[in-house]
Amino acid sequence: MTKDKTGPVIILSHPQMGENIGATARAMLNFGLTELRIVNPRDGWPNAKAEAMAVGAIAVLESARIFATMEEAVGDLGLVFATTGRDRLMSKRTATPDEAIAEVTAEIAQKQLCGIMFGAERMGLTNEELVLADAILTIPTNPNFASLNLAQSVGIVGYEWWKATHDRPEFKVPAKYRRAELANKEDLIGFFEHLEGELDRTEFLFPPAKRPAMVQNLRNLWHRAALTYQEVQTLRGIIRSLTGAKKRGKRDD
Amino acid sequence: MTKDKTGPVIILSHPQMGENIGATARAMLNFGLTELRIVNPRDGWPNAKAEAMAVGAIAVLESARIFATMEEAVGDLGLVFATTGRDRLMSKRTATPDEAIAEVTAEIAQKQLCGIMFGAERMGLTNEELVLADAILTIPTNPNFASLNLAQSVGIVGYEWWKATHDRPEFKVPAKYRRAELANKEDLIGFFEHLEGELDRTEFLFPPAKRPAMVQNLRNLWHRAALTYQEVQTLRGIIRSLTGAKKRGKRDD
Repeated sequence: MTKDKTGPVIILSHPQMGENIGATARAMLNFGLTELRIVNPRDGWPNAKAEAMAVGAIAVLESARIFATMEEAVGDLGLVFATTGRDRLMSKRTATPDEAIAEVTAEIAQKQLCGIMFGAERMGLTNEELVLADAILTIPTNPNFASLNLAQSVGIVGYEWWKATHDRPEFKVPAKYRRAELANKEDLIGFFEHLEGELDRTEFLFPPAKRPAMVQNLRNLWHRAALTYQEVQTLRGIIRSLTGAKKRGKRDD
Repeated sequence: MTKDKTGPVIILSHPQMGENIGATARAMLNFGLTELRIVNPRDGWPNAKAEAMAVGAIAVLESARIFATMEEAVGDLGLVFATTGRDRLMSKRTATPDEAIAEVTAEIAQKQLCGIMFGAERMGLTNEELVLADAILTIPTNPNFASLNLAQSVGIVGYEWWKATHDRPEFKVPAKYRRAELANKEDLIGFFEHLEGELDRTEFLFPPAKRPAMVQNLRNLWHRAALTYQEVQTLRGIIRSLTGAKKRGKRDD
């Protein structure tokens, strides 16, 4: 919950199932979104089923604010998007999640509070609610099966928010895979020539007219594997072992 | 289910709750993914709870293939990603969903079958299963609350697949918002001068030293609104009405 990256407010209109509210809270917190507002939840508030589905995101539910109407829920917000499926005929411009999040991110950088509305499970947002939004957010989906689960929609918007506000992760690379320890070309060429010498000896690279293409294909294969220095030594040990140059049980790699 | 865009196979390892399998099927079909494989589902197969949660994606469940082991499930596949949370120490390279999908899309274009593994709800994939994959797929999340729901993860990967394989949607724009019907500059300037003339008359644009900045701010406001020709006529009617140039009930716009 980094305060310097407070995301858009997520506003659920008339949600029916507590499970979906809980799953929404979980998806929000997965992507660093913490401010939830709920307009008129069908089963009242608090909701035990929501809490059960939120897993560790109870804090999002506990700090959720409940409103009687969408007008009140968006009263203090600047830029607001309304999430709808495709082909909703509205006299508003429509954005994809990444486009909408780009706008939201820019507004939030200017200290504007922003919000994203999501409609009830079956009916979506009413036209009166849509009118309160600046623009429509539509998640592109399979037109033959377009209806997304509520928490799934929130999760995808949250995912785009996280992507837009964080650097691409730098994954920990195990030491032996670090670039610095990749075999250098001298090591590789030594290995190539070792292998090719043995294959010449056993007449695998035959007939001579085909040798250049065979060698090239093999070298391409090894390059693709992005071998480390240690792996090159292992492969050379294997060659020695297979050719009988080393007795079994006496690896020197 | 467009056959020309058959996506990666989704492989669930040892899923526990039928609800999650059903929600996965729904998320898959939302983004055009139809081939589901399941390794050793805890509660057997078929699963009534999965069917209840799949909503209209029953066909994905009906055509799902059940395997006893991950080795069998990936036997016919080329490029395979294994989905894990962050900080899983593995001697494999790691990709974000969009990076992984870019690779999958390129392989599928070469007629390669590709797959993406997802682990069981709590334990994730075993090390033995990870070893069968070419690379790791990690969805970037809030490090303090990283655990994504299974179907949520599948949905995000599916969303990236849909984005990568479809043009950015061209949303239907209502006729009155189409670019061709935006007011041209001549219409706008006529409106500006009409309004500013009235405001000079009522001494709103006062004192004269501040007039240029006030006019500029107002003109910027109207430009931001991207007015249509019809809206400009409406605004001019409003000015006439407010100034008493027109009687109420006699709109000429």
